[in-house]
This record gives sequence, structure tokens and C-alpha cells, in this order.
Amino acid sequence: MVTIQDVARAAGVSAMTVSHVINDHPHVKTETRARVLQAITDLDYRVNVAARNLRTGRTGTIGLAVPEVDRPYYGQLAAEIITAAARHNLKVAIEQTGASREGELDALALSRNRLYDGLILSTVGLGPADTDLLKVDYPMVILGERIFDGPVDHVAMPNVEGARAATAHLIERGCRRVVLIDGGPPGDEVDVSSLRYDGYREALAEAGIPLDPRLLVHIDGLTMEQGAAAARRVSESGVEFDGAFCVTDTVAMGALRGFADAGVRVPQDVKVIGFDNIAEGAYIVPSLSSIDPDHALMASTAVRFLVGRLAEKGKKRQVAREFISRFTVVARESTGG
Amino acid sequence: MVTIQDVARAAGVSAMTVSHVINDHPHVKTETRARVLQAITDLDYRVNVAARNLRTGRTGTIGLAVPEVDRPYYGQLAAEIITAAARHNLKVAIEQTGASREGELDALALSRNRLYDGLILSTVGLGPADTDLLKVDYPMVILGERIFDGPVDHVAMPNVEGARAATAHLIERGCRRVVLIDGGPPGDEVDVSSLRYDGYREALAEAGIPLDPRLLVHIDGLTMEQGAAAARRVSESGVEFDGAFCVTDTVAMGALRGFADAGVRVPQDVKVIGFDNIAEGAYIVPSLSSIDPDHALMASTAVRFLVGRLAEKGKKRQVAREFISRFTVVARESTGG
Repeated sequence: MVTIQDVARAAGVSAMTVSHVINDHPHVKTETRARVLQAITDLDYRVNVAARNLRTGRTGTIGLAVPEVDRPYYGQLAAEIITAAARHNLKVAIEQTGASREGELDALALSRNRLYDGLILSTVGLGPADTDLLKVDYPMVILGERIFDGPVDHVAMPNVEGARAATAHLIERGCRRVVLIDGGPPGDEVDVSSLRYDGYREALAEAGIPLDPRLLVHIDGLTMEQGAAAARRVSESGVEFDGAFCVTDTVAMGALRGFADAGVRVPQDVKVIGFDNIAEGAYIVPSLSSIDPDHALMASTAVRFLVGRLAEKGKKRQVAREFISRFTVVARESTGG
Repeated sequence: MVTIQDVARAAGVSAMTVSHVINDHPHVKTETRARVLQAITDLDYRVNVAARNLRTGRTGTIGLAVPEVDRPYYGQLAAEIITAAARHNLKVAIEQTGASREGELDALALSRNRLYDGLILSTVGLGPADTDLLKVDYPMVILGERIFDGPVDHVAMPNVEGARAATAHLIERGCRRVVLIDGGPPGDEVDVSSLRYDGYREALAEAGIPLDPRLLVHIDGLTMEQGAAAARRVSESGVEFDGAFCVTDTVAMGALRGFADAGVRVPQDVKVIGFDNIAEGAYIVPSLSSIDPDHALMASTAVRFLVGRLAEKGKKRQVAREFISRFTVVARESTGG
């Protein structure tokens, strides 16, 4: 059996350096790395993973449960998490929950049976009533969309404040009749749509603009398809409007298509702003104004929280930590540049 | 210690059913599933993963190495792979290679030391000269961008044929001066750009249109940013053109932005087609014509090949399998609808 010492000898480095290469440690010189990888290949060396896991009780992999990895927001978030985790020498296994409460409960119930050292859970289906289910006995961080009062570390967006700023940006640009395209009528649930609805409502109130329920357009799922259908619907409704706040950029990308289909010009007839600042927004025509919640900061904070939990294993549990990200308003062509 | 039998008794089902729920077996009734998950939670049951892995030699997780998960093409491909793998009761851990030969070699060299039962590797950096490095002793499937003659299972796109059809589509729509925006001058490497360049060249030859080197625009990386810069560059070059074939949809999305910046109208002044049929293409304005290589079929075939390799463990190795996907031309507004 080939040992790590054999590899080290063949590569002319220390066993520690070989270990660093195997574990993707960032501070190994390119040339040294290449030599170690060559020695690993030449000698056909392999780590006894099962033995290592039994010894350390770790797998070096964290789980990331997101609604859908093919929606730009989650794809870009996952890339940021992978980058942040790599700095802590952790791999990321991605699961899709399908944006359902059931899928998220499965991720929670089954994670301790998976090969994860911990879990970052991006919730959209769970509600405050599910707080008890979040009292899991493995390291976990809730990421993104929802604020819990529960005992769990979480990283959230400034949803109300960001939505207020988005709506205020439209009002500053002269809009008085602002459509809200969101994920459903406000209910008891603390979901992204209802938080951003609160921000929308507050901005109107601050500007002394009465809220017109005919400007609230609810959709069944935050997709491009639904956004396009909503924009066509409001355009054909006969209701006057001059602005649109879409609760996500993906919905806004669909809405831009729906307005184009209906012959409504952006930004001349209607100014449009989204939320999330996905990469595509800077390139589409017209480019999309948005709220940027600093995903890189959210991702690195979520990973840092999780790494903190991993480190305290067996020690007294710290109190739950909360991080609300900052945001900036990104003004582009869809609101007049 | 709580056993699987305890869970089965509490839920009123067989131990086999509990096992199915834990392993995400697709054919468990929703109601039964909920009962089993409740019993797992109530009894605080956990699988001894390390013991199971020592027993089976399996982790139930396959690796998927892609250049970048935040590029729409790869995000959408990853989602298809996750869906296809779930049908075989496999989880997917995603790694990013950074689109570099070094990143891909790392994925190859280190996969056997990871917790993967096998690897699906989406290559863009490796070349035919690296064939020997692909002779790994764990199950692996090469996906997507490159054709090897080596001894490895692979699933590829019909790159030459698709590119020929894309270019022919522009010619059918009246274009005679077709710009090619691709990833670099054709070299010895069998990469996506050079294969699609071959298809472009063939379509021109078939139509009796001479190839004008001034219409070949090379970019440094297949990104929106590079696509936008290339479109601006060719628009300002003084060279006449009436069509543009971009080797990926991501590049084409950038090019649409670049043409808009330069005051070149799509499709009136220039007709544009991409390759990949990413979801965004149907919604942007103008909507993007493209070549659809049937990602779902590619993903399910790649997973099927890998599952086949997993099943033959220890048996005589089968010959390498190859699958070239089919394609369709999707005509949208960017080529006149």
C-alpha cells in the first residue's frame, strides 16, 4: 500500500504539503502542486476516505440545499458558496428542494444521514410555524429569504429596506403608479414576497401615494414565465401605471419580455426595477435596475457561521447568530439609466 | 441505539420502506413518506454512514465537475444531472474547475480520494493529448464539449452539425456576411470553438460563400462581457456584416448588448443566433435563436452511462460508449422570428 510518505518522497516535499494538495489548501505553489499531483498519479496513491472519516468524524463536505440550481439567482449564490467554502477547505454538495416546504423538511430530516458535516439551507417554503423543526443537532445555517426568530444561525437579505429603496427609486424617477409583481397575496407567512410588499407599501406611504390594490399583481412562482404573463396581464387590464417593482430579477426579466409583447416601452412608458442583481441584468436590453444585496458577503458569512459551528463541536453551543446583508440600488436603463 | 426496525415499527411500515425513504427512492407514497420522516425525527434515528460505506464501498454521491455553476448553461445542465441522478437514487456533489486544464486535471487526480462513487466531468480545458490522463480506475463519464478518441465513456453535442445548421439558418434568412464570434483562432485543440468553426466553414462552403477572415472575431473566454465587447468591436471595424453566429448563447446574450450599444439593430441590421438554447433566450428582447442540443437527454444519458459503470464494478470492463446528442434549430426574433 502506497502511503502519503511515499508520495512526499517521490515529489520531494513534506507529507504535510501532500496533505495540503489533497485537501485543496490554497497556499501551495503551482509548481509544487503539479509535482505532488504527478506523484499521486504515478504511484496510484489514494486516501483511505472511510478510515479518515471514522477517525475525524468529518467528511469535508457541507450540504447546500437550494430551491433550484438552474435559476440564475441560486446558481450565482451556489458559485459564491462554493468559492467561500473552498477557502475553508470544504467541498459543497448541492441539493434541490424544489422550492417546497416538503423538500426543505426532507433536507432537514435527512441531512444528518447524509455525508455532510453541516448544512446551509436556503428556505422559501418553511414558515415561522416550522421553527421547532429547525432545532437540529447538526451544524446548520439558514440562508437568504426568510427571517426566523428561532434558535438557528441565519443570513438574510435586507428585504424590507431593499424593497423600500427599489420603490423609492421608481418614485424619485417620477413614477406615481407603481405596479408590484410579487409571489402572492400577503398572508401570515414571512416570505420574501410579503417582506418586499411591506417595503413597497412603506415607500408609497412615505411619498404620500395611496396604495391602489389594482396595481398588485400576484404570480404563482417567481419565474420568467410568470413575470412575462403578469406584465402582459397588467398591460391589458386598462389600469394605468408608470412603474413596476418586480420582487426578483428573474421575474423582472420575464416582465420586460411581457411589456415588450404588449407594446409597452421600458423605460419610456414604464420604469422597471428588480431585486437580486443577477449577472444577466447588466447585459439584457434594456439593462435592468436592481437591488444588490451583496451575495458574496452573504455567502462568505454563511460559510463562516457554519465553520464556526463545526469548530465548536462538543463544546457549549453558542447563541444563534444573525447577519442581515447590506444593499445598494443599481440604476440601469430600465429606470432611465 | 435506535435501529431501522424501530423506525419501521413506529411508522407501521417495513424496514425496506424506511430504507427507501432515507435513500430518496421515488416510489414511496407521500403519506407513507411523511410518516416515516416523522418517526425518524421522533426517534432521532440516524444511519451509520461510515459503517454503511465500509460495508457497501459506496457513498451514494457522484461528482459533477463543471467549469462554472453560475454560467446559465452549466447551471441548467447541473439541474438536469441532479434530476437524472435522483432517479437512480444518487446525490450530486458539484465542483467547479474554473474552465482550466489544471482544474480539470485536479478533478481527475483527486476524485478517487473524494467521497464520490463516480465522476461526470464537463471538459473544456483538456485536449486530445491528455487522453492518457483519462484512463482512471473509477467510473467516469466525459460530458459535453469535447470529443476524445480515448477509452472513456462520453456524451457530446453535435457541435459541427449544430454549428453548420446555425450558420445555414442565417444564410436561409438572407445573410451573406456572417460574423463568427468564437473562443479563439482554430488550433490543434479539439475544442468547442474549433468544432463550431468547422460547422460555420462548412455551411459557408455549401452556400458558395467565400470565408472572409475579417468576419472571424475571437474572444478570450465565452462570457457575456466578451460577447458584448466583440459585437462592439466588429460594429466599429467598418467591415460589413448582416449576420452573427455566436458559439454559445451566453456569448450571444452579450453580443445583443454590444450591438445595441453600437446602434446596430437586431434582426433588421444583423441577424444573431447562439448555441445551447439556455432558458433566458426565450425571454430576452429580442428573443434569441439558438441550437438546442437536448440537455435533458444528454444529462440522463451521462448518468445512465455512469450507473452502468457502477454496476459492473469488479466485472470485466465494457468498451467505451459514446453518445452524440441530437439537435434542433430554434428560430426566434433575433433571426427574424
